[in-house]
Amino acid sequence: MNDTFLQACRGEKTDYTPIWIMRQAGRYLPQYQKVRGNVTFLELCKTPELCVEVTLQPIDYLGVDAAILFSDILIPLEAMGTTLEFHEGRGPVFPNPITNQADLDKLIIPDPNEHTAFVMETIRLLRQELQVPLIGFAGAPFTCATYLIEGGSSKVFWETKKMMYTCPELFHAMMDKITRTTTLYLQAQAKAGAQALQIFDSWAGVLAPCDFETYALPYVTQIIADLQDSGLPIIYFANNGATLLEMSESTGADVLGLDWRINIGDAVKRLGRTAVQGNLDPFSLLLPKDELKKRIGNIINDARDAHGHIFNLGHGIHQFTPPEQAKAAVEYVHELSCK
Amino acid sequence: MNDTFLQACRGEKTDYTPIWIMRQAGRYLPQYQKVRGNVTFLELCKTPELCVEVTLQPIDYLGVDAAILFSDILIPLEAMGTTLEFHEGRGPVFPNPITNQADLDKLIIPDPNEHTAFVMETIRLLRQELQVPLIGFAGAPFTCATYLIEGGSSKVFWETKKMMYTCPELFHAMMDKITRTTTLYLQAQAKAGAQALQIFDSWAGVLAPCDFETYALPYVTQIIADLQDSGLPIIYFANNGATLLEMSESTGADVLGLDWRINIGDAVKRLGRTAVQGNLDPFSLLLPKDELKKRIGNIINDARDAHGHIFNLGHGIHQFTPPEQAKAAVEYVHELSCK
Repeated sequence: MNDTFLQACRGEKTDYTPIWIMRQAGRYLPQYQKVRGNVTFLELCKTPELCVEVTLQPIDYLGVDAAILFSDILIPLEAMGTTLEFHEGRGPVFPNPITNQADLDKLIIPDPNEHTAFVMETIRLLRQELQVPLIGFAGAPFTCATYLIEGGSSKVFWETKKMMYTCPELFHAMMDKITRTTTLYLQAQAKAGAQALQIFDSWAGVLAPCDFETYALPYVTQIIADLQDSGLPIIYFANNGATLLEMSESTGADVLGLDWRINIGDAVKRLGRTAVQGNLDPFSLLLPKDELKKRIGNIINDARDAHGHIFNLGHGIHQFTPPEQAKAAVEYVHELSCK
Repeated sequence: MNDTFLQACRGEKTDYTPIWIMRQAGRYLPQYQKVRGNVTFLELCKTPELCVEVTLQPIDYLGVDAAILFSDILIPLEAMGTTLEFHEGRGPVFPNPITNQADLDKLIIPDPNEHTAFVMETIRLLRQELQVPLIGFAGAPFTCATYLIEGGSSKVFWETKKMMYTCPELFHAMMDKITRTTTLYLQAQAKAGAQALQIFDSWAGVLAPCDFETYALPYVTQIIADLQDSGLPIIYFANNGATLLEMSESTGADVLGLDWRINIGDAVKRLGRTAVQGNLDPFSLLLPKDELKKRIGNIINDARDAHGHIFNLGHGIHQFTPPEQAKAAVEYVHELSCK
């Protein structure tokens, strides 16, 4: 068992810098496209055998040091009783967005082992196959809330902020319900066998720091506190969160994910004994190999004083990335960080 | 003549904090919608009398301390010989994006007084009407380049980064051509009567700091150096640029625009004798008046050590904002900052 990733999460010295890649099981891989060609995205998410297959695809090919459960952050929101659709080219759609207390009251706090049994089964099956640690995950409450309020993806999050600013009680009640759902969901993942848990706050970066502090931070902090019993390392990734770094650390996360907009060395200087994960611009996988290698070396060097560094991209790998470039990146990380 | 805005740009003490609002002449105003109902957006941009009318609309109504020329950052790109269209609901479209050297060679460096004469005429007419300073503007070269390369707006800027990473000579040649165009364009605005110049780098924040330094910063710096002769204050607004602040200051800009994602006090601490402009989240104009006032007071207080503070939103005002909330914000800024 390769547990370099878990060592780095705990801030322990490692023989080399471990790496995994956000969305490493995904559309840039022809073998993923093949599986996906036969089923819808939601069918894929709900079929443990297929989830296992696509989760495993990149592990040997890329040579990464961790696997991440194949699923979607919106799965537990559907389990709350919402209608979730994925439209090609448009992304996720919630046709009945939450606009008032009555809408919110209709949502349940689902039993994760009942309503998302397929996720827990995927985790159990994966643990029988994997020689690297398995990361479970969920969306952070703020990010989940934006989808429920906007009815899908958004560019400017007008409806979300409108609710925050004009109906704060409703907003906080929704956050509370999502938070309780997310805690149970992640606790169930831990029990099913996940060995680390990542909380994706994809849209945290649209908030002013004072709003992040009021409307998002307390809920993430609550979840992480409630996960302490699991003993698992928790990774919190507040995308576009350069100005939220100190508050993100205050959540008690063991590892902070960093997007590519911040110099990783600058981030390390601002943190205490929290490990960091990141942060190559996913698109720089397009660089000629010698320049890609140099850039990876710069990140490893910039992160040399970190209390644990897990190499990753600063965001999910783009669907048009040549897989061999991702494979090369993994090799460079291992080669350049080898002690 | 109210020149509080210009004093703040120069870092001089002012009797109160001046304010203007990005996109203050825009769709949230019914009187703007009325003008716009009779012409296309491009027709409006090219008709000096109408540009003057909509530029003036918010000045008295809101009570702001500066006017900004009504135009669009893409106007000089069209003058370079590109085809520019505005499609309702989709935004700007360049149907023939730049993909190679031959595409780039077709673009000219236009004489701003000939190809964008309507802009200069608008400035001259406005100066006869205004009792507050007039801000001219242009897009920063990187931001302009993204539109030419992507063929319009983008979410992830794949084509732009692909060109940066795989065809850097072509990218730099394009940046050079846009830079020369922009310098001439802003110099002509200065000569026509603009009293300050803002450079909008709306998409700077999608770049990793190392890429901003290589692919964007040198060109902004060149423009600002070439504008020194004008004697006008230069405002550089790198949107989502919290991690680019020190580099942004190195451009020599007199004022740095700040988006809402950074605490303005934190920004001030990181800067030397550069003034700041910002940075209320545009959507917080939806807050109840007492909370809006409190939030404005916090920003004024946080910016108290700035070498000049111009209040503004952290981004353009949203089209669904109630105009009376914007008017109230202006009053609060004046009231709360009054010495």
